[in-house]
Amino acid sequence: MIVRPSFLWQQQTDGDLKIKDWIRYDDDTPHATMLGIPFARASISASGASEFPNAFRRTWDSFTPYYVDEMIDFSPYRLCDIGDVLLHATDVTKSHAMMEEAMMYVIERYDKSLYTTIGGDHSITAPLVRALKRAHPTKTIGIIQLDTHFDLRDFSQGRTNGTPIRQLVEEDIVKGRHVVNIGPHGFYNAKSLIEAAQHYGVHIIPLKQMRSLGIKQTVAHAFSLLDVDLIYVTVDIDVLDIAYAPGVPAATPGGMRSNELFSLLFEIGQRDITAIDFVCIDPLRDVANMTVKAAAYAYFTFIAAQQKRDME
Amino acid sequence: MIVRPSFLWQQQTDGDLKIKDWIRYDDDTPHATMLGIPFARASISASGASEFPNAFRRTWDSFTPYYVDEMIDFSPYRLCDIGDVLLHATDVTKSHAMMEEAMMYVIERYDKSLYTTIGGDHSITAPLVRALKRAHPTKTIGIIQLDTHFDLRDFSQGRTNGTPIRQLVEEDIVKGRHVVNIGPHGFYNAKSLIEAAQHYGVHIIPLKQMRSLGIKQTVAHAFSLLDVDLIYVTVDIDVLDIAYAPGVPAATPGGMRSNELFSLLFEIGQRDITAIDFVCIDPLRDVANMTVKAAAYAYFTFIAAQQKRDME
Amino acid sequence: MIVRPSFLWQQQTDGDLKIKDWIRYDDDTPHATMLGIPFARASISASGASEFPNAFRRTWDSFTPYYVDEMIDFSPYRLCDIGDVLLHATDVTKSHAMMEEAMMYVIERYDKSLYTTIGGDHSITAPLVRALKRAHPTKTIGIIQLDTHFDLRDFSQGRTNGTPIRQLVEEDIVKGRHVVNIGPHGFYNAKSLIEAAQHYGVHIIPLKQMRSLGIKQTVAHAFSLLDVDLIYVTVDIDVLDIAYAPGVPAATPGGMRSNELFSLLFEIGQRDITAIDFVCIDPLRDVANMTVKAAAYAYFTFIAAQQKRDME
Amino acid sequence: MIVRPSFLWQQQTDGDLKIKDWIRYDDDTPHATMLGIPFARASISASGASEFPNAFRRTWDSFTPYYVDEMIDFSPYRLCDIGDVLLHATDVTKSHAMMEEAMMYVIERYDKSLYTTIGGDHSITAPLVRALKRAHPTKTIGIIQLDTHFDLRDFSQGRTNGTPIRQLVEEDIVKGRHVVNIGPHGFYNAKSLIEAAQHYGVHIIPLKQMRSLGIKQTVAHAFSLLDVDLIYVTVDIDVLDIAYAPGVPAATPGGMRSNELFSLLFEIGQRDITAIDFVCIDPLRDVANMTVKAAAYAYFTFIAAQQKRDME
Amino acid sequence: MIVRPSFLWQQQTDGDLKIKDWIRYDDDTPHATMLGIPFARASISASGASEFPNAFRRTWDSFTPYYVDEMIDFSPYRLCDIGDVLLHATDVTKSHAMMEEAMMYVIERYDKSLYTTIGGDHSITAPLVRALKRAHPTKTIGIIQLDTHFDLRDFSQGRTNGTPIRQLVEEDIVKGRHVVNIGPHGFYNAKSLIEAAQHYGVHIIPLKQMRSLGIKQTVAHAFSLLDVDLIYVTVDIDVLDIAYAPGVPAATPGGMRSNELFSLLFEIGQRDITAIDFVCIDPLRDVANMTVKAAAYAYFTFIAAQQKRDME
Amino acid sequence: MIVRPSFLWQQQTDGDLKIKDWIRYDDDTPHATMLGIPFARASISASGASEFPNAFRRTWDSFTPYYVDEMIDFSPYRLCDIGDVLLHATDVTKSHAMMEEAMMYVIERYDKSLYTTIGGDHSITAPLVRALKRAHPTKTIGIIQLDTHFDLRDFSQGRTNGTPIRQLVEEDIVKGRHVVNIGPHGFYNAKSLIEAAQHYGVHIIPLKQMRSLGIKQTVAHAFSLLDVDLIYVTVDIDVLDIAYAPGVPAATPGGMRSNELFSLLFEIGQRDITAIDFVCIDPLRDVANMTVKAAAYAYFTFIAAQQKRDME
Repeated sequence: MIVRPSFLWQQQTDGDLKIKDWIRYDDDTPHATMLGIPFARASISASGASEFPNAFRRTWDSFTPYYVDEMIDFSPYRLCDIGDVLLHATDVTKSHAMMEEAMMYVIERYDKSLYTTIGGDHSITAPLVRALKRAHPTKTIGIIQLDTHFDLRDFSQGRTNGTPIRQLVEEDIVKGRHVVNIGPHGFYNAKSLIEAAQHYGVHIIPLKQMRSLGIKQTVAHAFSLLDVDLIYVTVDIDVLDIAYAPGVPAATPGGMRSNELFSLLFEIGQRDITAIDFVCIDPLRDVANMTVKAAAYAYFTFIAAQQKRDME
Repeated sequence: MIVRPSFLWQQQTDGDLKIKDWIRYDDDTPHATMLGIPFARASISASGASEFPNAFRRTWDSFTPYYVDEMIDFSPYRLCDIGDVLLHATDVTKSHAMMEEAMMYVIERYDKSLYTTIGGDHSITAPLVRALKRAHPTKTIGIIQLDTHFDLRDFSQGRTNGTPIRQLVEEDIVKGRHVVNIGPHGFYNAKSLIEAAQHYGVHIIPLKQMRSLGIKQTVAHAFSLLDVDLIYVTVDIDVLDIAYAPGVPAATPGGMRSNELFSLLFEIGQRDITAIDFVCIDPLRDVANMTVKAAAYAYFTFIAAQQKRDME
Repeated sequence: MIVRPSFLWQQQTDGDLKIKDWIRYDDDTPHATMLGIPFARASISASGASEFPNAFRRTWDSFTPYYVDEMIDFSPYRLCDIGDVLLHATDVTKSHAMMEEAMMYVIERYDKSLYTTIGGDHSITAPLVRALKRAHPTKTIGIIQLDTHFDLRDFSQGRTNGTPIRQLVEEDIVKGRHVVNIGPHGFYNAKSLIEAAQHYGVHIIPLKQMRSLGIKQTVAHAFSLLDVDLIYVTVDIDVLDIAYAPGVPAATPGGMRSNELFSLLFEIGQRDITAIDFVCIDPLRDVANMTVKAAAYAYFTFIAAQQKRDME
Repeated sequence: MIVRPSFLWQQQTDGDLKIKDWIRYDDDTPHATMLGIPFARASISASGASEFPNAFRRTWDSFTPYYVDEMIDFSPYRLCDIGDVLLHATDVTKSHAMMEEAMMYVIERYDKSLYTTIGGDHSITAPLVRALKRAHPTKTIGIIQLDTHFDLRDFSQGRTNGTPIRQLVEEDIVKGRHVVNIGPHGFYNAKSLIEAAQHYGVHIIPLKQMRSLGIKQTVAHAFSLLDVDLIYVTVDIDVLDIAYAPGVPAATPGGMRSNELFSLLFEIGQRDITAIDFVCIDPLRDVANMTVKAAAYAYFTFIAAQQKRDME
Repeated sequence: MIVRPSFLWQQQTDGDLKIKDWIRYDDDTPHATMLGIPFARASISASGASEFPNAFRRTWDSFTPYYVDEMIDFSPYRLCDIGDVLLHATDVTKSHAMMEEAMMYVIERYDKSLYTTIGGDHSITAPLVRALKRAHPTKTIGIIQLDTHFDLRDFSQGRTNGTPIRQLVEEDIVKGRHVVNIGPHGFYNAKSLIEAAQHYGVHIIPLKQMRSLGIKQTVAHAFSLLDVDLIYVTVDIDVLDIAYAPGVPAATPGGMRSNELFSLLFEIGQRDITAIDFVCIDPLRDVANMTVKAAAYAYFTFIAAQQKRDME
Repeated sequence: MIVRPSFLWQQQTDGDLKIKDWIRYDDDTPHATMLGIPFARASISASGASEFPNAFRRTWDSFTPYYVDEMIDFSPYRLCDIGDVLLHATDVTKSHAMMEEAMMYVIERYDKSLYTTIGGDHSITAPLVRALKRAHPTKTIGIIQLDTHFDLRDFSQGRTNGTPIRQLVEEDIVKGRHVVNIGPHGFYNAKSLIEAAQHYGVHIIPLKQMRSLGIKQTVAHAFSLLDVDLIYVTVDIDVLDIAYAPGVPAATPGGMRSNELFSLLFEIGQRDITAIDFVCIDPLRDVANMTVKAAAYAYFTFIAAQQKRDME
């Protein structure tokens, strides 16, 4: 970068420390890594979720590393954006393998960090958890899933975004009873999938039940079900109501309000979590960028919670 | 239909039983009929509500007959789409008569079924209830109305969508005290209409009161007021907040959240209901199709509740 | 106006008394004045808030002076639209001075009225309160601020919409401890601004705290902190969640639901308030006009509360 | 209007003479009258064309009475907005009669003026021309129609917006051979309507033919076909391509570019014209207000041409 | 289908013969077949082109089989919708094979017909032409391509929508010199692709050149270059300007106006054509449905031209 | 930048040389500099033109340095993005001074280059040309302006975007007769501004005149009027028709088609030009990003023309 006179600069600023100033690109021992997976080719419905990693990064000039609701300054937290995974344009199987290898590399390279991943469609969760198991073959893994759907479809149409949980359970990487899905609602899971959930022993906490339990109690209950070594959290933004998140491939009414999702993640984030992903945000059909911003808000709520936990 | 080789088909599917697969078109003894009324010519404000019956049908490839929140499989429920009413393009009075005759036919032809109607603007409720009274002249009819507005305007501008309740009360088809309107809020009913409500004895439960009572209690209270033989439910989707339902002709802030509407309908749907209509959804000014989807969600929540009641 | 035959008119109507019929333009002793400030040039981010005063006026054909939730008829209330302030197209300092002089004139001319102002960006609050202080130099002034942001930035970039509270506190027009900000949330105030709030003694009630206290208790608590003679309320509509208010320059997730804002204003409006402003609504980026309508709804909720207080 | 200090005003201005400043409301001998007909109830497809008269008026703060392309100052031209016709909310026949009476009044009251009408859907043309014939029973009337459609449907569905030309021809108010329709294109007129055009002798100049003739020659040709006393021009904005005019009820590709429409109207406007209407603009489904603005541009191009003709 | 009384029907109609009434589903010897390929998984950029076959079908209620510009009644033409190809949700190679087999079946089953295909992304052209070659191994095939892009990318990312022409040339199914691409413009083909076009001998007629030649001459020139037995036409709707076709995955300014595309297809359609496809229309990001409608208009212009040719 | 394994990268690519790969950031002797001015505070109407420099940069991943229409490879051309000018958030006068100083620096630092500037609103042209005059005090400067407006307003409202040409002429930096404005049309310049143009001797070539002359002849004519040493080109994107450029603060119908603008710039760009700016693009109100893309297309057309000129 050449030196320029003070009246020339690259980017206007209002003087605050913004996420874009705070994010790291070359930290060897970050508290957390952020890996992008610009991949939407395994989505059953048409999806632009491949655009989300960069859309997420573009929100960083409007967020600061300070969480007002809980007065948490997470600027000491070191978050390192390690870039996007290289993928294949048409070969889904190969792309899934490339993600798995990338995740293996990240786990080995940054072995003390939290692994956060920015999807992408929900099919990415399977290779990511598979890599986690390969890296920790003797550890048991539990999954907290926040989702409108069960993602327990069979593989007749390949490893679509409707299959990741079934993949992991059928491959015995995760036990069915070590999966807790919070948030399903409405008319978006066929009876055959309900039966699959029962067959595999996956725990389903419908949204209505979550609301009657309360969010803290729901999280406590979910963790009580997970007698495991490592916990992986997967957040499908389509768990949100379409009024809050129109920018997902299969947006539905009757979903969570965004503040409920934020509260869930603030509770979950104060626990020991090994990895987390955020999937199925489609910036191309968003309205007023609200879904992209809600996903970013959810992400930083989780990070703030991790910071709080580290402080205590 | 000619036979085609297996690699040619009419419609992609993900293998689930969807509403489009489950709906019936030629059942003589269905649990419920579904009649479309593509009519918006009596709407005071410009309205594309005539587009809703088909917009509703197009949602059927994304809904399944299984309600996750309450784990209700309503696939045994038999719902028969009997088509749309033929209407006149410019003669409102004639169109209203055509609806009334169609409803008479439906009541006689499917005499054991629940009658569901998909509007259309709110003016359709008057001919539909009039037909119900003609078919059951000795029965008393009560109305549960979910609406931002009272619909008690006078007839100086004809039988607009602002008049159906007044029509029915003035014609003594329904007693004013047998109408309970849940959900009015804000600044959308002039004082003269408040006075009309008082004059006719119509029960108004403003949204704020509904929230302080609770939804179950509100429904119980509403039914306690209705000492009648038959109950007709009319759902004006403009009762929803504009953030959840921008696609109505007169969308307002300060309305119900969609989950409140769904809860109301789940409570109401577990009771003996003779007929229900859904009106004033304008797909032409919807955002992200969210209003159309919310109305469909409301409809199937009611059906799921009916199924639950049948099971018990 | 020339006389015309009865079949020619200027505006279609449905016969109800609407705000447009009820508003006054030439009342010398109104209960409240309404002053427009079509000014957005001090906004840090690009803003069309200068379009709001007229956008607000255009909502008046769909609102009536009757508040159904509380059954309050505020048609006896006399609200006088006294027009917009003349401003300079490029000189921000001069425009701020013009606003201050206009407010001085209004306070003197209508000395018994409530002063309501329709912005405009948030920078207008400083000259408005400055005028109030000039008119009442011996009175102490307290501020209730409903806002996502603290507006405590320094003046290195001039008197932007990020600075009004700091201007007033630094000029000793208002004590820091006489400012209560309800609603901040999320990641939109840098740590340096938190520190500024602490330095000046400004009270911050984050949204999460407001929700755990309850709205009535929050308002009671806020007023208990304000041992002052005059209370000025400033409502930055960006306090609302982006799902309810996409039409603000810096819309965020995680904000208030509009019904919470309405409840706050109904509580606040039942107290003695000297002046109120509504700022930062950008009609140019609104979706389905929902933000403009929500701001209008908020405004009339406050007026209804004032009417209720006058009646008691 | 009360007198106010100079720093208070009702409307920001940039100092130019705008249409809103130039328009007259009470001129007894204007060059032209402007009558609004906020009516869309006879539209076959859902239409918000009733919103256009006011949407048209709202463009007046961005247009000036000076036409740069031809350097025509039409500020001396006196255009008088005489308001909107009072209509019935549900009775189409009655509303059409009300329009006819209003037009009769206008013709008598302003007997030397050009009569311009702002619709509304295309059904309004029939009562307007009917009134013209009643006022001038011995005069022959010719119609220049700019339209994608023929509007020659039969009356089985009443006097819809698809019927006005057929009404006038069947009632012998206008001879079929005295109608010239410029602009039909594509796939939007069924063969039966082509046959009707042939039957009645209506002249059809498809868009492709207009383009190969050239605009001046097309207009000259059209006028050569009209051996009549009075000429009525009707402009259905749906003659424009959907890229230029998405805000019409049945927008189509393959239509005119807006500059072609403007050139047509500039040619036509330099001739003796008795009356003109602009119909089928739906502001509710417009994109970026472009259709409303194009219709306003077309209107003022015609006025500029009239001024040019008056000057010569 | 059960018999219903005349006042009940499935679909409102205005009485005209519409495409939806005219289209055939079970004709054994149609003039043309229509095959849908709801496939977008090989698109380099995110694409909802898989939604187009059904979006195309939904336009059929607003088009008639009569082309006004040329007064062509193509209702005698027999067009048979033979449905969509069954595809695999994640395996691109398998899906391409499924398309090829479907096309083989269609060619054999309907051996005298014109084959029209509705995509889908542009990758579908390769398997379709491959099938044509398999069915006619001794015939030479020429391609008229209307496209902004060359589609000559290499296969390092698989058989993407950027590769179909290269696939066909490299497999010697079509000679490079038997490909004429009309319409490339702007900055959307890298120099390496220009070099590839030169290497393979593909003829490029940039849009600017087409405009200086004229459309008839361009088409005559293109056909003069194609000394082949069978001609395949492929229409990538992204050849249109973004103002006319915002609903494509990579919309660009500087493209064709839609009337130019229609004229091209009217010229081409009067020649002997074996097959045609329309690709890369993404209904999910369309504005006012204008791209979908433009593609349908293009399709029927071609059909009208075929009818004209049959008549002569 | 740390070294990463090959499967991790920062940005997906399709392998082509894109503008983002070709652009330079630290070239000392570029053919052209690109300076961003994210400034919209002097715009009379609300404007987000401050967002354009970065919106322009974001288009660089979809454009290549090869212009197909004219087969020009401009990859040898060296274009250096030197960043954005630092501005003041509220002081317009100061910001204009900062731009002028930045331009002085650029002219001195890169004294052999073409100076391109990306606005911002049109007020930026005055300080830019002022700097050019300061750097070359003995040279005469001519301006080619492509604009719907004259920008000859007086300074009663300060140095708004309606004033730059008047500023330069009144300060005698540019003679009125050395300004040629191509493209004004319609009703957007008041008579007083026409008179100002005549007073200063500014040449106005309305769009209609440009079309009758032809683009090459118009450009030749414009240059024949400019007997000057240096030529500055200013492109106000609002010269385009609203169908092509909805994303400008005052979009109008009746403007240029984008291909006309591109042709103008291709002609102009083959001449000796000292500097060029592109102003008044508002990405916040764009539709489908089409205005941003059109402005980028215009920019690169000009660069391609410069390359062609350098080659010859």
